[in-house]
Amino acid sequence: MEKIYKEIDRNSERYMQELFTLLRQPSISSQGIGLSECATLLAGMMEDVGIRTEILPMGGANNPPLVYGEITSTGAEKTLLIYGHYDVQPPEPLEAWDSPPFEPTIRDGRIFCRGSADNKGQLFAHVKAVEAILKTEGALPMNIKFLFDPEEEMGSPSLDAFIMANADRFAADFAYNADGAMDSSGRPILSFGNRGSCYVEINYREANRDLHSGQFGGPVPNPNWRVIDFLGTLRDDKGRVAIEGFYDGIVPPTPAEKAAIENIPFDEKATLKYLGLKSFDLPEGMSFWEKIMFQPTFNICGFSSGYGGEGTKTVLPCKTRVKIDMRLVKNQDPADIYDKFKRHMEKHGYDDLELKTTTAYRPAKTPIDHPMSVAVVKAVRASFQDEPIIYPVTGGSNPSSIICDFLKIPIVKVPYGSHDECNHAPNENMVIDLFYKGIKCSATVFYELAGI
Amino acid sequence: MEKIYKEIDRNSERYMQELFTLLRQPSISSQGIGLSECATLLAGMMEDVGIRTEILPMGGANNPPLVYGEITSTGAEKTLLIYGHYDVQPPEPLEAWDSPPFEPTIRDGRIFCRGSADNKGQLFAHVKAVEAILKTEGALPMNIKFLFDPEEEMGSPSLDAFIMANADRFAADFAYNADGAMDSSGRPILSFGNRGSCYVEINYREANRDLHSGQFGGPVPNPNWRVIDFLGTLRDDKGRVAIEGFYDGIVPPTPAEKAAIENIPFDEKATLKYLGLKSFDLPEGMSFWEKIMFQPTFNICGFSSGYGGEGTKTVLPCKTRVKIDMRLVKNQDPADIYDKFKRHMEKHGYDDLELKTTTAYRPAKTPIDHPMSVAVVKAVRASFQDEPIIYPVTGGSNPSSIICDFLKIPIVKVPYGSHDECNHAPNENMVIDLFYKGIKCSATVFYELAGI
Repeated sequence: MEKIYKEIDRNSERYMQELFTLLRQPSISSQGIGLSECATLLAGMMEDVGIRTEILPMGGANNPPLVYGEITSTGAEKTLLIYGHYDVQPPEPLEAWDSPPFEPTIRDGRIFCRGSADNKGQLFAHVKAVEAILKTEGALPMNIKFLFDPEEEMGSPSLDAFIMANADRFAADFAYNADGAMDSSGRPILSFGNRGSCYVEINYREANRDLHSGQFGGPVPNPNWRVIDFLGTLRDDKGRVAIEGFYDGIVPPTPAEKAAIENIPFDEKATLKYLGLKSFDLPEGMSFWEKIMFQPTFNICGFSSGYGGEGTKTVLPCKTRVKIDMRLVKNQDPADIYDKFKRHMEKHGYDDLELKTTTAYRPAKTPIDHPMSVAVVKAVRASFQDEPIIYPVTGGSNPSSIICDFLKIPIVKVPYGSHDECNHAPNENMVIDLFYKGIKCSATVFYELAGI
Repeated sequence: MEKIYKEIDRNSERYMQELFTLLRQPSISSQGIGLSECATLLAGMMEDVGIRTEILPMGGANNPPLVYGEITSTGAEKTLLIYGHYDVQPPEPLEAWDSPPFEPTIRDGRIFCRGSADNKGQLFAHVKAVEAILKTEGALPMNIKFLFDPEEEMGSPSLDAFIMANADRFAADFAYNADGAMDSSGRPILSFGNRGSCYVEINYREANRDLHSGQFGGPVPNPNWRVIDFLGTLRDDKGRVAIEGFYDGIVPPTPAEKAAIENIPFDEKATLKYLGLKSFDLPEGMSFWEKIMFQPTFNICGFSSGYGGEGTKTVLPCKTRVKIDMRLVKNQDPADIYDKFKRHMEKHGYDDLELKTTTAYRPAKTPIDHPMSVAVVKAVRASFQDEPIIYPVTGGSNPSSIICDFLKIPIVKVPYGSHDECNHAPNENMVIDLFYKGIKCSATVFYELAGI
């Protein structure tokens, strides 16, 4: 690998300049800005390296352009599928950025730009790894397919159907993804799964407009009470979700997963202080990480009605909106959970409340004792020069399930972003050194997985 | 009265121009804008008419200037105290106004301007009534004192203490107030009281910042659940307030009040349609007006936490804010209700929630069979040329209690604003014809009350 690492070091400045070109092109899926321009730009950069690319419109209302790439190696037996996404979060609030969100700017050894870490800087590392190997060795150790998602920041609404209809195209032996952030200790991570998510929104309305609370308060009902009464039915005395069948099929961590959890560095006192909390909400005997990885949540993301500013406003609000996201663990399915939620509403007589679901992700998990684990640990150790931490699951959600459960391809994620990458936030940034280490990591991963 | 009415008609155009001068001077108490300038202007206009005025700083942090006026009549036995307020609501949102908020503009027979109806156009009617009487008759039929509040739109936070410390100055036989809106039928109103108000705000926080719901959801508690659990303790199965002693001392309407309520025109079907409701929330046998006038409310004015916009945001909010206003009826006291609320919190183990109160008004009621009633009905009938409706109480709140309960002066309110005056809202307006009728009404009221 030494020759390849030297090639990467020699060309690092140019790689960064090319990344800047990619970063300057906005690609905000939720606002419909710049996706096709970015797809064309990215596909061109992949072609320049020698990857055969296709831009695949995924259909549906948005018809977003998936960037697909393929590069084969004569005699190679194994195929790797790389997942990444080239869309970015909206840059708002603009005034909170210290430099323009779509003009890559270097400060303190970091590239500040929307998409620098999430995910352009990480997906581009794979592309540059391919280039470095080809330049040095003339051929890749395995076949590689690229699936660059145009809508990850929106919950990848078109991806499942498109992959199901084109399963053969994406067939592979392993799948790999670089996204998200390393451990706050600075150590790299291998993540073997993620929680799913069922996001629902409840809307309830009484009058047709907000009213003066003195003039109408009393005879005109307040929508909040009915919503609060409903929310009261959703949890039992112990704070557990009271929806019938909500916990069905949930399994505790395996002994191997339990051992991995125990190896995750965790300073409870420091974390509590960092978050400003007195204690965590943990059942007797359950650790922080076990709850994050193996327990579902029932989280109110938003409750909004009437006046929320300073001081007094005597309003009788006409409507209430509540947003709930349920993070789901292995064997929970978002569609099934949504049905159960709806049935609970009906059973308790609250079907006059409007219920809708906005995003859904299935949980996903690749066994941590899969042979990929040893291979990728070796690659990460060599490239980052640090001992990686094994996360059986991460708490967030992503579209991995379609890869590991439908395509049946084991998938592992190695984040190249620093723990303070500020993804989804102003001043998103990619540590330059981690971008270069990421390129080395991808290259090493290709060799290690080829050797399994 | 005919001579006086003719004098008013002859000078109406000039009265309106003088009102315009008063309206052009912003006086936004909650933003600390223009109060002393407006006090000086108003006091000068009163002096011009022959009213001896004083500007009385009320003390406290804001030290707001109360405009006091007095005019005596040789041989007059009775004294009237007129209450009004010269401060106005903030004009925001500015873009919703069809003409500049502080430039009086005539359209469709109305003066559009912030303060035109609430309350400068109504309080100025009293001043011009004094002028018309003095010009015509040379003397008033009774002594009159003027109390023009600089902070009504903020809940008159300084008024009670100031009046208590200066009770002699405000001593009178009757009190009169022109504020608010006439009945939606277009008929004038006599209102003999108002509900009080105890406004509380609950704040509760868990972590020190909003967090990613995937990354931290589970071990980190969500503040909404604790607040929802608490709110659940506040009402019983029938939706009645479960705070101990909340309803103590509440009395049903007297037979006279009941008869007055039955005489209020009310089209239930039309009102439901206007509000977009299927039904009102009324106990068996209780009318809309009885609930408005004789029942307290427990209204959530605002519930805010996390994300309330469109679509998905996977946030674990760190804090929750709930605003509740309780409209109170005769024999309920806001300070006592606040104490009971606080005790309820402690009793149920929720004293970790932060509780504060922002505004408090005591309920107020003058008996509708007080001799003032017949006198003011006569005056209103003569000036507005329509039969007034008797409201024993109105649903909103105002500082009348300090006048009728502490100073022991019976008070009646006659609104000169139209039902669509848009007070507190953009395009606030005063119907020009009602401004002139208001001047006549004030003048007639002085004679009728002098005759009791």
